[in-house]
Amino acid sequence: MRALYFDGRSLSLVKDYQLKPCDETVVRVSLAGICGTDLEILKGYAGFRGVLGHEFVGVVEESKNPELVGKRVVGEINVGCGTCSFCRKELQRHCPYRTVLGIKERDGAFAEYLTLPEKNLHTVPENVSDTAAVFTEPLAAAYEILEQSHIDPSWRAAVVGDGRLGNLVAQVLSTVVHEVHVYGRHKRKMDILRDLGLKCFHVDESFEPHGYDLVVEASGKTTGLATAANLVKPRGLLVLKTTVADAVSLNLSPLVVNEVNLLGSRCGPFQPALQALSKKLVKVQQLVDAVYSLEEYSTAFKHASSAGTLKILIRP
Amino acid sequence: MRALYFDGRSLSLVKDYQLKPCDETVVRVSLAGICGTDLEILKGYAGFRGVLGHEFVGVVEESKNPELVGKRVVGEINVGCGTCSFCRKELQRHCPYRTVLGIKERDGAFAEYLTLPEKNLHTVPENVSDTAAVFTEPLAAAYEILEQSHIDPSWRAAVVGDGRLGNLVAQVLSTVVHEVHVYGRHKRKMDILRDLGLKCFHVDESFEPHGYDLVVEASGKTTGLATAANLVKPRGLLVLKTTVADAVSLNLSPLVVNEVNLLGSRCGPFQPALQALSKKLVKVQQLVDAVYSLEEYSTAFKHASSAGTLKILIRP
Repeated sequence: MRALYFDGRSLSLVKDYQLKPCDETVVRVSLAGICGTDLEILKGYAGFRGVLGHEFVGVVEESKNPELVGKRVVGEINVGCGTCSFCRKELQRHCPYRTVLGIKERDGAFAEYLTLPEKNLHTVPENVSDTAAVFTEPLAAAYEILEQSHIDPSWRAAVVGDGRLGNLVAQVLSTVVHEVHVYGRHKRKMDILRDLGLKCFHVDESFEPHGYDLVVEASGKTTGLATAANLVKPRGLLVLKTTVADAVSLNLSPLVVNEVNLLGSRCGPFQPALQALSKKLVKVQQLVDAVYSLEEYSTAFKHASSAGTLKILIRP
Repeated sequence: MRALYFDGRSLSLVKDYQLKPCDETVVRVSLAGICGTDLEILKGYAGFRGVLGHEFVGVVEESKNPELVGKRVVGEINVGCGTCSFCRKELQRHCPYRTVLGIKERDGAFAEYLTLPEKNLHTVPENVSDTAAVFTEPLAAAYEILEQSHIDPSWRAAVVGDGRLGNLVAQVLSTVVHEVHVYGRHKRKMDILRDLGLKCFHVDESFEPHGYDLVVEASGKTTGLATAANLVKPRGLLVLKTTVADAVSLNLSPLVVNEVNLLGSRCGPFQPALQALSKKLVKVQQLVDAVYSLEEYSTAFKHASSAGTLKILIRP
């Protein structure tokens, strides 16, 4: 099959890539999304070698469960050992021995086929299009914030970052909190957020220091945490979603003095994300900038890396 | 009166320093402690100018409340505006307009006298000596951890740092958690902790990566957070007590990927600290390395700054 392989230095399209033999379910990938983490992996994050890609929707081709064959599915990306203390608590995504689709010791979604254990797969409701379903994984990452913490509806919330993840996080927070402000840098991205009814500010122009009970850092930039630390109230909650390959230089004293609760947040629960898409609580179509074939991967990744871009999809 | 004044570049003993006129309670300082924050202020932290020092025990000399005169007291160091949203919630220590004894726009305790509002003062139980009472402020900072978070007694806890604050934090955690390990670097300091019944490890020799539900960073070093991040379990609680003047270079990805809860923690409640001293739940005498007069301030600060030292006291 055709697959986009990263050898640690560069991406290339391999035409006769072989799926690793296993007893997992085989999924034919219909559509896959390029994520900020993919771009960081190309810069060296996580030391990954293999087929890239972890956001996808597809159709089950082979499975030990005959009822699953032909079903449209999305998939949770962490595969745990099944026996450690985290796996026993249904926290496979923190299993120290886990593999992760397209991120850690497991081939990913920028290919014609991928494999995952059956328990990782979720069937997609009929009224959710492929273009919407491919956002399940990043949307689940936004829902993770609600799983980790109690969010008080009377809080004032801010999101740092107007990109793909910032947009989804702002929409998810808006289902719980009445006042959500997005701090961004790109007119077009902020206009899209405004069309969704969200208040946006340019981070260099309007700034409310220590004015928010909850701040989510989703900028994907090393400078984002300092911005977020300036926005959050003393004793407030600062959720950190950005993973970057580079070390960040940061004066931690304000976090200590203001007793900020800084919460790392990563992959999240798929079911609330699928339900939100099905109920149209969260809108994702406006985030798609282009769809490319596997062969056009070079253009696709250039497009995804450029500052103004939201989501780039790949159709294998 | 005599007072140790910091002009932004150096400390000096001023012989005829005048207390600022105010209607606060006047306390004659019996004993004061040099804290890591004092040493950081001398390096530029917080931009403070004035009389240094914020750990003290003393005797009330003048007060609008006649019953207070002659009483032995310790004092909370944050003085709020009294009207903002934090002050209304009894969180003066987060008032954005606060002054802080010897740290922010308020003369401190390395002087014959200091002033504080009556509400900041707590009388010291008779069975607590001056040498013990002077530890109330740093001990309250250790108790702040219990005020901020629910600590599960079945957790495994680690403290990074075998110094003054690490020692107090380890003792306080031991009142709640059965298993507390201290990671240090100094044989003498670790021997003192072992005499208190605590398990100690040299941070370079024995290390249990991601083995602790709760890790408290109290090393006072810029490298401490990276050590703590390696000790804490995924989804664990990492309490950050260290304030340093320097920026820290840190790869934040492990905190995000492991969804660590990083909690800044500063000043704490005085009453539990005084009660713990009175009930001998926490022992502090073993931490005192030397007592100096105000005139010996230069020797005192040199002693406090040297690597092997625990607590240095000043008797004005």
